[in-house]
Amino acid sequence: MDILTSQQKEQINMKQEYAIGIDIGGTNTVFGVVDHRGDILYRGAVSSRKHAKVENYIDELHAALMPAIEQVGGMEAIKGIGIGAPNGNYYSGTIEYAPNLIWKGVIPLAQMVTDKFGVPAALTNDANAAAVGEMMYGAAKGMKDFIMITLGTGVGSGIVANGRLVYGHDGFAGELGHTTIIPNGRLHPGTNMRGSLETYASATGVATTAREFLEERPKEESLLRNFPEDEIDSRIVYECAMKGDKIAKDVYEFTGKILGLSLANFVMFSSPEAIILFGGMTKAGDLILKPTKKYMEENLLSIFRNKVKLIFSELNEADAAILGASALVWELKG
Amino acid sequence: MDILTSQQKEQINMKQEYAIGIDIGGTNTVFGVVDHRGDILYRGAVSSRKHAKVENYIDELHAALMPAIEQVGGMEAIKGIGIGAPNGNYYSGTIEYAPNLIWKGVIPLAQMVTDKFGVPAALTNDANAAAVGEMMYGAAKGMKDFIMITLGTGVGSGIVANGRLVYGHDGFAGELGHTTIIPNGRLHPGTNMRGSLETYASATGVATTAREFLEERPKEESLLRNFPEDEIDSRIVYECAMKGDKIAKDVYEFTGKILGLSLANFVMFSSPEAIILFGGMTKAGDLILKPTKKYMEENLLSIFRNKVKLIFSELNEADAAILGASALVWELKG
Repeated sequence: MDILTSQQKEQINMKQEYAIGIDIGGTNTVFGVVDHRGDILYRGAVSSRKHAKVENYIDELHAALMPAIEQVGGMEAIKGIGIGAPNGNYYSGTIEYAPNLIWKGVIPLAQMVTDKFGVPAALTNDANAAAVGEMMYGAAKGMKDFIMITLGTGVGSGIVANGRLVYGHDGFAGELGHTTIIPNGRLHPGTNMRGSLETYASATGVATTAREFLEERPKEESLLRNFPEDEIDSRIVYECAMKGDKIAKDVYEFTGKILGLSLANFVMFSSPEAIILFGGMTKAGDLILKPTKKYMEENLLSIFRNKVKLIFSELNEADAAILGASALVWELKG
Repeated sequence: MDILTSQQKEQINMKQEYAIGIDIGGTNTVFGVVDHRGDILYRGAVSSRKHAKVENYIDELHAALMPAIEQVGGMEAIKGIGIGAPNGNYYSGTIEYAPNLIWKGVIPLAQMVTDKFGVPAALTNDANAAAVGEMMYGAAKGMKDFIMITLGTGVGSGIVANGRLVYGHDGFAGELGHTTIIPNGRLHPGTNMRGSLETYASATGVATTAREFLEERPKEESLLRNFPEDEIDSRIVYECAMKGDKIAKDVYEFTGKILGLSLANFVMFSSPEAIILFGGMTKAGDLILKPTKKYMEENLLSIFRNKVKLIFSELNEADAAILGASALVWELKG
């Protein structure tokens, strides 16, 4: 039975002017209270690893969010909660077998959050959330066709076609980091598959390439040799490359070559207006952008050449994830 | 000024119960008059190569279609004309630099057809048209996410996501035959690029593989050696394989391996409910289907495994193209 008049309901809807965005990473969970303009009013973080039981994690998240929620007028001012999480499934609202999270199996997180907070919750994978953030508030504003590639510890992606996220029939579309680019190439320890984009174009991949190059070119001097091999990471490679180190520069050239070849394939799939690169690896700037662009163009069919914008995200990493997750809320029914 | 009453307009709209579907191939153009149920009432064909001037080609097409149009009640019974053509661009209605057609450059075909016939015309590429046909009348009926792969002389594709064809920002999305699957692999004489899916999984690719295998294994007997090398085509390879010939069977195994690897990549892009194979190569049946399925599954991330239907088209080739082109008409405004 409907006990509110439509006028009363409208007043309540008008009060619901905030969304909560939550980004669940392997280590930390960041969150924010966001308004319609995409301004993040309050921010906070909790550990993603502290509670073995997901119920206890949600309790802590709730406790951490309540002060901010009170500041904007209590739960009745919140339209809903959007969540970005690794292996998050938009259709089912579940996190499924996420290798980097401590909760195993299938976690009905959206439902659990709804039960705890008493507002609707929507969930998608973290890269999709970042793509939505970019579309609403960042470099992809107004675009109907673009691809977001996150270059971090791993390689993630969010694909927008005809103005909508491509979720696929099961909600898992957009695992471009796991597409094979070098058949029988580098082994991915997490998936046990060979030659995926992620094994080359992630921060981890850059460090692996550096170690391989040092081994293959034993007589060549390199600043990289000043570091113990197992301490070499993408930041060190970047710093050495900026100092002019040949091997370090070659690592980025090689990474860009493989990333560019992959991006060319993605362009021939969905012909996006732009590919937006996002995540820690983009700090390398032109070191990664220039070879990627060059090899992408070289591997495109002529009708696609010199058309696709290859750009960096305009949002800072933490904000994009929160904004993208919160943006899911505005699409929620009711 | 509106000189018709809405009742009169409705009567006219009700009379527009037929669509014309035209499929322009490199050699022949086939066409049909189609009703709402997808029944093709009249069929015909003209040459695509006879007229150096596209205007003369359209004149002949018009003359060939008019008797069928008269049979269903004249032009006022025709809602519009849908056209599938190589390098057809849905947004602009143009055919752009189609290597297999005799008309060069950019041809504003949809506009020219509208001018000649006096009804709206829509145009898309031939593989997209086949995908629409499959979605409305074939194996993809009711599906919102699927990929159609045409395995003919070349390899084409049409991608449907969220229930809509993926055209991309410029109308050229879905060139999956030109994605690189073997970096530095086989040279494509048409594009001058190396290692594209089309160089392996097309009928041309199968013949090339057969010749390569015969050369690499000179001491091995094969029925294929009964044919002059330059006469070997995919039909001969198929027939030899069906007779148990080892090299011919290996050719299909190899083709399926590369096609399966590519399909796995496509699945990780858009997570389709089904991949529908279409075109001459599908006549090889299990010879191509079994290895393709096996290698597709092997190269999928576990969350995608044993979910995607890999099936053959349910439409015969000529019909799918006409039906798909005609189906564009029902989406036309007005």
